Amino acid sequence: MATASSHVPKVKLYGVPYSVCTSRVIMCLLEKQVGYDLQVVDIVKTQDHKKPEFLKLQPFGIIPVLQDKDFSVFESRAIIRYIARKHEGHGTPLYGTSEKDKAMVDQWLEVEAQNYNPAIAPAVWHLIHAPLFGQQGDPTVAKASIEKLEKVLDVYEGVLSQSKYLAGDFFSLADLSHLPFTQYLINDAKRGDIFDKRPHVKEWWKSISTRPTWIKHLSVAFPGKNFDSPGS
Amino acid sequence: MATASSHVPKVKLYGVPYSVCTSRVIMCLLEKQVGYDLQVVDIVKTQDHKKPEFLKLQPFGIIPVLQDKDFSVFESRAIIRYIARKHEGHGTPLYGTSEKDKAMVDQWLEVEAQNYNPAIAPAVWHLIHAPLFGQQGDPTVAKASIEKLEKVLDVYEGVLSQSKYLAGDFFSLADLSHLPFTQYLINDAKRGDIFDKRPHVKEWWKSISTRPTWIKHLSVAFPGKNFDSPGS
Ligand SMILES: N[C@@H](CCC(=O)N[C@@H](CS)C(=O)NCC(=O)O)C(=O)O
Ligand SMILES: N[C@@H](CCC(=O)N[C@@H](CS)C(=O)NCC(=O)O)C(=O)O
Repeated sequence: MATASSHVPKVKLYGVPYSVCTSRVIMCLLEKQVGYDLQVVDIVKTQDHKKPEFLKLQPFGIIPVLQDKDFSVFESRAIIRYIARKHEGHGTPLYGTSEKDKAMVDQWLEVEAQNYNPAIAPAVWHLIHAPLFGQQGDPTVAKASIEKLEKVLDVYEGVLSQSKYLAGDFFSLADLSHLPFTQYLINDAKRGDIFDKRPHVKEWWKSISTRPTWIKHLSVAFPGKNFDSPGS
Repeated sequence: MATASSHVPKVKLYGVPYSVCTSRVIMCLLEKQVGYDLQVVDIVKTQDHKKPEFLKLQPFGIIPVLQDKDFSVFESRAIIRYIARKHEGHGTPLYGTSEKDKAMVDQWLEVEAQNYNPAIAPAVWHLIHAPLFGQQGDPTVAKASIEKLEKVLDVYEGVLSQSKYLAGDFFSLADLSHLPFTQYLINDAKRGDIFDKRPHVKEWWKSISTRPTWIKHLSVAFPGKNFDSPGS
């Protein structure tokens, strides 16, 4: 699997397209128009991410890993920063165009990692993924998770009433980083309501989730599936 | 409170010197020789971080916040990236000197935030801080936290046998970010043993915790206190 056109040699991405951390990187590569080959790592059946070969690339045994010729980097949010910096003049300016933009992108990328992600992750696990892995989801944990997420969304509503995107009036690494988990909550757990009831959050989600790059990614990662969009 | 000399106008830092997130930023400012005024925010008694004035600066109501003239940024790891980039040619090159260095710094800063911090934080809370806040620490949680941390340290031991610091042979944002929590675990919880028994981790900790900047910070944050150092 690879993108069609590119201005530079292809990179190699180790991961699986349905994983949230891999999707974050794929979305960044698509926006920057960087060609890539996806090297699928089976993290369920054969557990290839725990084998010695893979541990040489990622000593904690988790995906994704990006390989750019002989250079290799892991941690999804480190990878997307690397791609955005390396291809600064190409594709969408995902780190903005000034020092202050960069600081705002880092700030909101940290908020995504430190506040949003810990709030949403348990809900997605307990409502959607646990059953797929033969475990029982706990509705109490899911409920607490949604409540925590709503508090984060209250802050986002205020911020997004001042600017179109989180870091300013430009689509950035910070916005795209929210896509993978949120799409599971909206499309699979059917909890678009908590986004819909906050008008600026709703508008923001509509704007980022309808980007052609994201739609393209979803069609490859989940072939034949239909996707909702809040407010649609 | 402020640093003595500086090549640029002072910045204003909102926080408290004993907080781990504030210390991370202070350590960065000292290494970059950026003068600052610390605006102490009482997060215990008067809870100033939950007041409307502060929420304008940090909508989640947590410290620290950096104010650089009319520009303000929060999230400790976004702040230190901003400082390191803005003062690139001055003080310690905390982001390295190449694109690849930057990627390695981001990678290990993410590992610190995503793996190390979640592993060590419960131990420090349950062994040290809970009692100070009139709560009872749970030794079972502390034990699980230490076990998780030891797994992370096993990976660090391998990495630090290849390079002097986490991101390579240069002291970076990634290393300094480990200082605040680790010093509580070693000096207050007296758990230096888990660092001491891994020779490269021990050497690394000795090297980063004896930097004059860190010693200076500790002497200001905890006046009159004695500090251990593993292997000393
Ligand atoms: N902080 C890491 C998290 C990576 C992560 O949790 N990866 C998951 C998939 S999204 C994984 O490899 N899970 C398999 C496992 O933990 O065994 C990143 O952002 O890259
Ligand atoms: N991810 C944030 C975390 C900030 C944070 O947790 N700050 C703590 C002090 S270290 C705080 O303000 N606690 C007070 C509270 O949560 O009420 C950062 O790195 O800046």
